[in-house]
Amino acid sequence: MTTQQTIEAEYTWDGESFRAQLQVHVDGQGRITRVADAEGAPTRRLARRALLPGFVNAHSHAFQRGLRGLGESYPLGQGDFWSWREAMYALVLSLDRTSMKRLCVQAFQEMLAAGFTTVGEFHYLHHSNLGADAGELREGDFAFDEVVLEAAAEAGIRISLLQSFYKTGAIGRPLAGGQRRFATLDLDRFLQQLDRLAAKLHVRTQTLGLAPHSLRAVPDEDLRRLVDEAVRRGLVCHIHVEEQRREIEECVAATGKTPLEWLLAHVPVGPHLTIVHATHSTPERLRRFVETGANVCVCPITEGNLGDGLGDVATMLTRPDAVCIGSDSNIRLDAPEELRWLEFVRRLRHERRGVCRDSAGDVARQLLLCGTSNGARALGLPVGRIEAGCWAALIAIDVYAPELRGANADTLLPAFLFGASGSAIREVCVGGRWIR
Amino acid sequence: MTTQQTIEAEYTWDGESFRAQLQVHVDGQGRITRVADAEGAPTRRLARRALLPGFVNAHSHAFQRGLRGLGESYPLGQGDFWSWREAMYALVLSLDRTSMKRLCVQAFQEMLAAGFTTVGEFHYLHHSNLGADAGELREGDFAFDEVVLEAAAEAGIRISLLQSFYKTGAIGRPLAGGQRRFATLDLDRFLQQLDRLAAKLHVRTQTLGLAPHSLRAVPDEDLRRLVDEAVRRGLVCHIHVEEQRREIEECVAATGKTPLEWLLAHVPVGPHLTIVHATHSTPERLRRFVETGANVCVCPITEGNLGDGLGDVATMLTRPDAVCIGSDSNIRLDAPEELRWLEFVRRLRHERRGVCRDSAGDVARQLLLCGTSNGARALGLPVGRIEAGCWAALIAIDVYAPELRGANADTLLPAFLFGASGSAIREVCVGGRWIR
Repeated sequence: MTTQQTIEAEYTWDGESFRAQLQVHVDGQGRITRVADAEGAPTRRLARRALLPGFVNAHSHAFQRGLRGLGESYPLGQGDFWSWREAMYALVLSLDRTSMKRLCVQAFQEMLAAGFTTVGEFHYLHHSNLGADAGELREGDFAFDEVVLEAAAEAGIRISLLQSFYKTGAIGRPLAGGQRRFATLDLDRFLQQLDRLAAKLHVRTQTLGLAPHSLRAVPDEDLRRLVDEAVRRGLVCHIHVEEQRREIEECVAATGKTPLEWLLAHVPVGPHLTIVHATHSTPERLRRFVETGANVCVCPITEGNLGDGLGDVATMLTRPDAVCIGSDSNIRLDAPEELRWLEFVRRLRHERRGVCRDSAGDVARQLLLCGTSNGARALGLPVGRIEAGCWAALIAIDVYAPELRGANADTLLPAFLFGASGSAIREVCVGGRWIR
Repeated sequence: MTTQQTIEAEYTWDGESFRAQLQVHVDGQGRITRVADAEGAPTRRLARRALLPGFVNAHSHAFQRGLRGLGESYPLGQGDFWSWREAMYALVLSLDRTSMKRLCVQAFQEMLAAGFTTVGEFHYLHHSNLGADAGELREGDFAFDEVVLEAAAEAGIRISLLQSFYKTGAIGRPLAGGQRRFATLDLDRFLQQLDRLAAKLHVRTQTLGLAPHSLRAVPDEDLRRLVDEAVRRGLVCHIHVEEQRREIEECVAATGKTPLEWLLAHVPVGPHLTIVHATHSTPERLRRFVETGANVCVCPITEGNLGDGLGDVATMLTRPDAVCIGSDSNIRLDAPEELRWLEFVRRLRHERRGVCRDSAGDVARQLLLCGTSNGARALGLPVGRIEAGCWAALIAIDVYAPELRGANADTLLPAFLFGASGSAIREVCVGGRWIR
């Protein structure tokens, strides 16, 4: 519970441009009730600041923050995604409650400093134990589920815990090694655990979603039931799709369809559904997918680090609210850097500028949508805009930061997104509470 | 003149790894005289800091800092390099001594904050006036040459002023519009101006180099004389090469050779020579070029922003000290970001990790060389290493910065280069003088 606030910054983003003398009224619950021309003294005046909606990080695996600085040596030549995954599994096996909590708090605090006020935590590392010795597979203790929620509350970030179902190591193959910490072997028990978590949420900052890990890790019939269950419960549903070529080949071999093709054929596709990566998805299937109102989450820094390849963002953006971003492996946490490289890597590929642009041709405004309201849409949350009815999820950037010197109200947004980083952010507000 | 110093940080980079209890001895001129195991109290103790050589920014056009936040709207569809150049020329025509100085100081200060202690300023915007009315072309006043040197001194950065020769607007075509501010029409007068500048340098932090702008802007016979003159005077020589496909086509049409092919055939190529970009250069020519000991400067952020394309860095690195980096347009100034994306954009292209790696397979160490000693080599300056004989060009990073939390001596370098930014840099030393 906070008190009512009226916030007035030097500039406030109104969805189209930065405006002076605008006040944001926030109720005691942390919701924006009104955005209007200034009248009277604000309770919080942010001099020399420009107010933007907080960024939405639609896809994170917080614990992977623990890999930073590791796995960047290739004594035998070049590596790839699969060699990286081995390093990640080694981390997975090493974690206990204390170290898991520490990594998650670190990641969430760094997200806040980087401008992300909301995270969609795609959570598959459920167990603090292996569940059984190597010969026999049982589910573990689900202890890390609550650890993640506690860490988010401690850091102060809004979280949508995207509870992940993970049953097979590859299509038709049992879990092995570190994967046994992810085990969810029975869908009914999985939904019971979801209900237990629902009862423990901080109601103002925590929500749940469903996350069948991938077609590789979830058998067909469980996947169908999970998407149906998401629709029935009004939850969002996220799934990794077509990040790696090998994953596509194995799915085609097993089902005759690529993962995205399979989804389009077998589950209800619409605004509740978000696919993550879609790096190797064909334009035709992407077009059909986004036409339903469904979402795609792209993770530029992680995809660059892992060498995944370049997804067809131009086609995804045939619906301008279809593309959001995620920090995924959390090797680097910075919202402006994610957004500019979402655009830059595609400029390099096509040798043209302006791949992500809104209907007026503006790149920065389109990138801002990808970083804010599009992510809010994918998580089903009223954030990502500074307007009545939304949670007060705000960041205040220092108009006088060295990186922004020379910018005016018209050029501040592109100067920030192309030329600065989270280090220009001075204050951060989550649900009415000022974290920094 | 500073006093003698002994510097001891918690960790100091010795060229191979971070070591504790190492002291860096610096003389009153700002040169490192000795790096040795700690003995006695240092004059400057940097607790909780790791000392690295300052980064070398081998290619900058400082005034283009004034374009930040501009030119990112494409109402008529996608843009390219050439539409960006029009915006740049508009800025060029608007500058006077005061605004030129302000932009250069801003850029140089931001470079220092971003970890660059040395800049190679590829300087072609010479004149504060147009030289003549539109009908007649005369050289202007060369007033901006000294403005750049003054700005560097004021900011405190080490500069190699790469004085640029710029005579034609395209092969065989006169200068037009904003280009007239770049005009150097007579090589003898150009060299006289170089001599005048030599007499005005701050001897401890300023040097000169030669920079024929490109094959597009410099007639063949002037170009040959300029490279010969660089060799005769012992100066480095930098030139833009094969950034854009159109530039290559026009050169082939006029000379029968691509720009790089022409250089290999007609001028002495060796360690004195650095080509900038080489985005569309063929592997065979790149291999021949670097085999001579010559250098290539790649500008990852600017090339990403302009949508130039992806140069073949893997081939350039067949000689590991051949590749350095530059911030070029200065749209974003951050050394770690330049370096990680030098690697990441190529991972995305090849779907493999570890394009830039040293002989042991280590990526971070190879990237550090590209960002430090390789740039020093291209500028012919004794910087970029923490060792006796080099200028004390140092940065101190905060080992306890949130982005680096969890790193140890072994993982600190990759954690910094992949996961942090200039905001983790707390102190900066240029030639013995502490700027921050």
